[in-house]
Amino acid sequence: MPNPTAAMLVIGDEILSGRTRDANMHYLAGELTQRGIDLMEVRIVTDQHDRIVAALNDLRAGHDHVFTSGGIGPTHDDITADAVAAAFGVALGIRDDARAILAEHYQRTGLELNAARLRMARIPEGACLIENPVSAAPGFSLGNVHVMAGVPAVFQAMVAALLPGLAGGAALYAQNLTIPRGEGEIATDLQALANDYPQLSIGCYPYQRDGAFGANVVIRGAEKADVDAALVRLSELFPEAMA
Amino acid sequence: MPNPTAAMLVIGDEILSGRTRDANMHYLAGELTQRGIDLMEVRIVTDQHDRIVAALNDLRAGHDHVFTSGGIGPTHDDITADAVAAAFGVALGIRDDARAILAEHYQRTGLELNAARLRMARIPEGACLIENPVSAAPGFSLGNVHVMAGVPAVFQAMVAALLPGLAGGAALYAQNLTIPRGEGEIATDLQALANDYPQLSIGCYPYQRDGAFGANVVIRGAEKADVDAALVRLSELFPEAMA
Repeated sequence: MPNPTAAMLVIGDEILSGRTRDANMHYLAGELTQRGIDLMEVRIVTDQHDRIVAALNDLRAGHDHVFTSGGIGPTHDDITADAVAAAFGVALGIRDDARAILAEHYQRTGLELNAARLRMARIPEGACLIENPVSAAPGFSLGNVHVMAGVPAVFQAMVAALLPGLAGGAALYAQNLTIPRGEGEIATDLQALANDYPQLSIGCYPYQRDGAFGANVVIRGAEKADVDAALVRLSELFPEAMA
Repeated sequence: MPNPTAAMLVIGDEILSGRTRDANMHYLAGELTQRGIDLMEVRIVTDQHDRIVAALNDLRAGHDHVFTSGGIGPTHDDITADAVAAAFGVALGIRDDARAILAEHYQRTGLELNAARLRMARIPEGACLIENPVSAAPGFSLGNVHVMAGVPAVFQAMVAALLPGLAGGAALYAQNLTIPRGEGEIATDLQALANDYPQLSIGCYPYQRDGAFGANVVIRGAEKADVDAALVRLSELFPEAMA
């Protein structure tokens, strides 16, 4: 059975303007790979209702799971919950269980549960809450869409709460080999290797370090024996390579 | 006149698997913002022909410019040029001017221009070359699609060669204010400010540092006077804020 597939949607003006560098994508990619869920696509869109709705509908139709990050806080530019409700055509309102979580948290921390904070209890009809052990305000899953916060510490805590409940697949076995030669020197041998091992994914990622070019070769596959055999052959072809 | 819009397409299995962290997106976002070209969307897709073609056709129809990164090297998994040619429905072949650039480079560096390296002279019909002062193998522009390498040093050099030739827009004037309070404390005032300055973009980006929550507020606009006036009002409301 093929692995479940996933897409990520980052709602992030601040990333598109170059002000901040996304951290959540890299984190989620690593977590999904470990669980055998194949991340096929990431989109980053501006904080505009119609663009978020269109991306959500496109991605949820094409993948088993969609993970979103950003736009579920208390301020006027936090519009992800509205967009998710619109994409699914369901109502969005303050929900009692979410309100209770916030009320308990703000009472304990001595802060007021004001109108702005109450926005974070607005949950689309039919959604399940995702626990937020960092700052209480929950994320939510609606259908195959999982909506999480943009602050990295909160995003990571929500991913940790969510992932154990999702069915994973077979995590691919992978081996790396760093070959201190330009890609052009090794391309023909790599092509031959890829032809002989159609069941493996063989990626070649060039790098430049201190003016010298080299390549990281990543071999992935379901069967450890295949990956190891391909790695041995490559190591013999390029004795100067390092694992 | 509104600013030109742009999208970026990253071809990158290695980013989707969590193996590497993308650096080109953050770089391009900053460069485009400075030139008044509005980056509206980024997509990262796997190294699969059909997915690259579909994303290219979607993005080039919706934006003034599409910038791609990755997949134009000499190895079997470098398939971006093929995908661009397919998306535009034009032929792809080794072009004399691109071959001459490679031949000169490899002669000078004492390396062989072998069949794998010659793949990098395959340019879709009708494209213009983008200079690569780092490692010679050129990128190219076809219509509104600009195809560049994934290695960050090469990507950045190609962006530097390309951008001066593209029409820019008005770079927005921006001011930041860091407010050491939770978003929920400042949301109502921010909403009022956004209502009073509809011509400004006011973004609120929460952070968590040493267990305390705070917010970075970014105010952007075409007119410096508006941005500064909004900043002064916000500073007066939150005297503990820091520019």
